[in-house]
Amino acid sequence: MVDLSKFSTGEFERGASLIKELLWWLCRCLFFAHSLPVPSVFKVVLLRAFGAKVGEGVVIRSAVNITFPWRVTLGDHVWIGDEVMFLSLDEVRVGSHVCISQRAFLCTGSHDSRQESFDLITKPIVIKDGVWICASSFVAPGVTMAESSMCTPGSVVVKDVQTAIVVGGNPAKFIKKRYET
Amino acid sequence: MVDLSKFSTGEFERGASLIKELLWWLCRCLFFAHSLPVPSVFKVVLLRAFGAKVGEGVVIRSAVNITFPWRVTLGDHVWIGDEVMFLSLDEVRVGSHVCISQRAFLCTGSHDSRQESFDLITKPIVIKDGVWICASSFVAPGVTMAESSMCTPGSVVVKDVQTAIVVGGNPAKFIKKRYET
Amino acid sequence: MVDLSKFSTGEFERGASLIKELLWWLCRCLFFAHSLPVPSVFKVVLLRAFGAKVGEGVVIRSAVNITFPWRVTLGDHVWIGDEVMFLSLDEVRVGSHVCISQRAFLCTGSHDSRQESFDLITKPIVIKDGVWICASSFVAPGVTMAESSMCTPGSVVVKDVQTAIVVGGNPAKFIKKRYET
Repeated sequence: MVDLSKFSTGEFERGASLIKELLWWLCRCLFFAHSLPVPSVFKVVLLRAFGAKVGEGVVIRSAVNITFPWRVTLGDHVWIGDEVMFLSLDEVRVGSHVCISQRAFLCTGSHDSRQESFDLITKPIVIKDGVWICASSFVAPGVTMAESSMCTPGSVVVKDVQTAIVVGGNPAKFIKKRYET
Repeated sequence: MVDLSKFSTGEFERGASLIKELLWWLCRCLFFAHSLPVPSVFKVVLLRAFGAKVGEGVVIRSAVNITFPWRVTLGDHVWIGDEVMFLSLDEVRVGSHVCISQRAFLCTGSHDSRQESFDLITKPIVIKDGVWICASSFVAPGVTMAESSMCTPGSVVVKDVQTAIVVGGNPAKFIKKRYET
Repeated sequence: MVDLSKFSTGEFERGASLIKELLWWLCRCLFFAHSLPVPSVFKVVLLRAFGAKVGEGVVIRSAVNITFPWRVTLGDHVWIGDEVMFLSLDEVRVGSHVCISQRAFLCTGSHDSRQESFDLITKPIVIKDGVWICASSFVAPGVTMAESSMCTPGSVVVKDVQTAIVVGGNPAKFIKKRYET
């Protein structure tokens, strides 16, 4: 059985000093985590200041929860909807022209469920150009969504998604090709 | 592939002046979006002031996220639970004696996923008298839930639901008649 | 059809005075419901002051929504992730070495959907030692998750889960034994 008093983060590195983390918490609370309309350009400046790589034309709505901005890459013209969560303990690499709709959750963190020490496991998430992650979807650690792929609302995406494929359901499975006639 | 720099809202109209929208953002932040117990009667007065049609005996819990109140209609004795989201870019018409439980998400907005310009598509949601939308459910654009229908917790409702029918799952399917013996 | 003007909470008791409830609302807003990093030890002191039984080594992250702390029991080394909701109208009894991941929702409240008065129904949730409730899962009223059981991300758990079994999906079903080789 697990014994969480023996929990180990193994070789996990937080990637920032304690001061930087605390400052990010403060900025997140002041400018990201609530429902007031802070301009996206200002949020982008903050994300970059904390080490995120962010392109042009990025839109970030309200109540967005990003764990470590220094592990986030956003291309050009990325949209992040209300109440989206990035548990970015590991890299979250998002391409260009990507829409991440309301309440989506990109989760890079997990645990070794069979070890007593419940070791932390993190794996990157890669979202390629033109992807649409529909509202209320969950994307699991290690998943790559290829160019122009999509998941329908409420999807639980635990496997890679191929180019221009639409998946959906829990767990998410093939539904159709995005551009088929 | 989509090119979000060419995004078009088409003929979409926001339905309010910029001033009105900003005032709503402010009211939402001060009285709706947090976890303090603001009396429902006061929230109802505010919703009406911003153009919502709201009946008697309406209860609105905490951390509720309503996009455009001027596109919301609530009948009598409607309950809206904690952390409910109304993405009311289009009309959300709710009848009387309707319970919308915690974390439900009524989503009127979508996109044309196959157009380069990713055009905004909005469709009304209609929730008739006596409906119960259970906790953590998602209701898609264009859905009508008929009188006394229900969806079980965590449902993803993408099609119309017939009178007094219970649906559930992802995507939500027929489970049983609500009042069968 | 339901008539919510006739709603009855039946024999339901809130378990606290109005003053105590209002004080809890205030504490929840100040120390639990937002995204600032309040130390877990302080949150634990508050939960105990409001009647929760809480063991040692408990970690409580941000934006956690607990209805009635006086109906919550947490063993030793329990972790509660960001944006977790405990609708603890009835008892939520959590053992030791339990991980409740981000956005999970433990829901003890329901209604009699076939009665005109839509009576409140509450049932306890019991989470035994060593359980892992993965991110974005929903646990229904009355569910017991036995020792070392698990539900995968996005699960909708509506039935009891047996010892060291992994369930998943919507509704959650048997996937495998947690410790099988």
